Amino acid sequence: MKGKFITIEGIEGVGKSTNLQTIERTLAARKIPCAVTREPGGTPLAEKIREILLAPSSEPMSVLAELLLVFAARAQHVEALIRPKIEAGTWVVCDRFTDSTYAYQGGGRGIDPAIIASIEQVALDGFEPDLTILLDLPVETSARRARERGEADRFEGEDARFFEKVRLAFLDRARGNPRFVLIDASQDIETVGTCVADAITRLIEQ
Amino acid sequence: MKGKFITIEGIEGVGKSTNLQTIERTLAARKIPCAVTREPGGTPLAEKIREILLAPSSEPMSVLAELLLVFAARAQHVEALIRPKIEAGTWVVCDRFTDSTYAYQGGGRGIDPAIIASIEQVALDGFEPDLTILLDLPVETSARRARERGEADRFEGEDARFFEKVRLAFLDRARGNPRFVLIDASQDIETVGTCVADAITRLIEQ
Repeated sequence: MKGKFITIEGIEGVGKSTNLQTIERTLAARKIPCAVTREPGGTPLAEKIREILLAPSSEPMSVLAELLLVFAARAQHVEALIRPKIEAGTWVVCDRFTDSTYAYQGGGRGIDPAIIASIEQVALDGFEPDLTILLDLPVETSARRARERGEADRFEGEDARFFEKVRLAFLDRARGNPRFVLIDASQDIETVGTCVADAITRLIEQ
Repeated sequence: MKGKFITIEGIEGVGKSTNLQTIERTLAARKIPCAVTREPGGTPLAEKIREILLAPSSEPMSVLAELLLVFAARAQHVEALIRPKIEAGTWVVCDRFTDSTYAYQGGGRGIDPAIIASIEQVALDGFEPDLTILLDLPVETSARRARERGEADRFEGEDARFFEKVRLAFLDRARGNPRFVLIDASQDIETVGTCVADAITRLIEQ
């Protein structure tokens, strides 16, 4: 039997790392083999692309170059790691995926979603998650949490208005799309964890 | 007055470097400001992408990841260097450009040219050279010359059949396209240089 592909999405500071662990524990309790990975990155080549994307640079990066780099890393990640794992029966859990591109490069940078969709079609040929957990928080709360964790990368250095647009683009993606489970991450941490675990359990029992 | 954009194309070993110098000298003799650059690369960020593209790797690179990386570097190069130079009146001469992508990733790797065209449209929005010099040589001659120069990169390690497909894709691109000047690089070096200089002179006098 093939594995499933689960992604976890949201702006910085919403609690993706904590809830990734909840997903892992929920799968482990059912003895489901699971691999955790992240984007951009996930393979040695894709991680090299990640370095270029996240390193602060004195040369401003073209928004289209950024978009193409993100999908180059993703095409590599899917072909070299995600698809082979899923074909072999492992469930793959990924910290960020294509929805982050619609949110950051689309909502945040203002690239037309139709352009993103045309690159997505070439890079992934319709491949998408079975389930996407979207953790949602007001920008001021998530920004405070992200700041508490320390140093800013190129994206974390953006201002609050940027993250507001990113948040709204995530919410737009989720609306009416049955692949998404939207979770209010301003609830206490146990409640959020229960919502996440319940979503995973429903996918297992499908 | 805006500058012009000239590219020089062909498989390894056809004499691009030598003839780039001929182009520079021809422009300098007319006191035309000129900047020489190369692909993949040409800016610090694009050169970082070049490193990923050309480094031998134990992880096989997805052909689509390669295509997207090439165009990421190109979008950056055009936006950060080529367009600003041309707008400022400088002529830009580039060692390889989009035609190499149709030749290497299309002809060589077998990616459908329609897919390359869709990425080209997003990355460059119709931007193309005013003149492309295509130096053509039989694969066995060019391979011998390239070998004489030393170490192989990831592309130079491909076999003769790969370069045969690349050569034919270049010739297909040039056929009936008035932007191209096709030059038989098996002629003696002075004759080739005269053909190149004549093509540049015609562009200047247009």
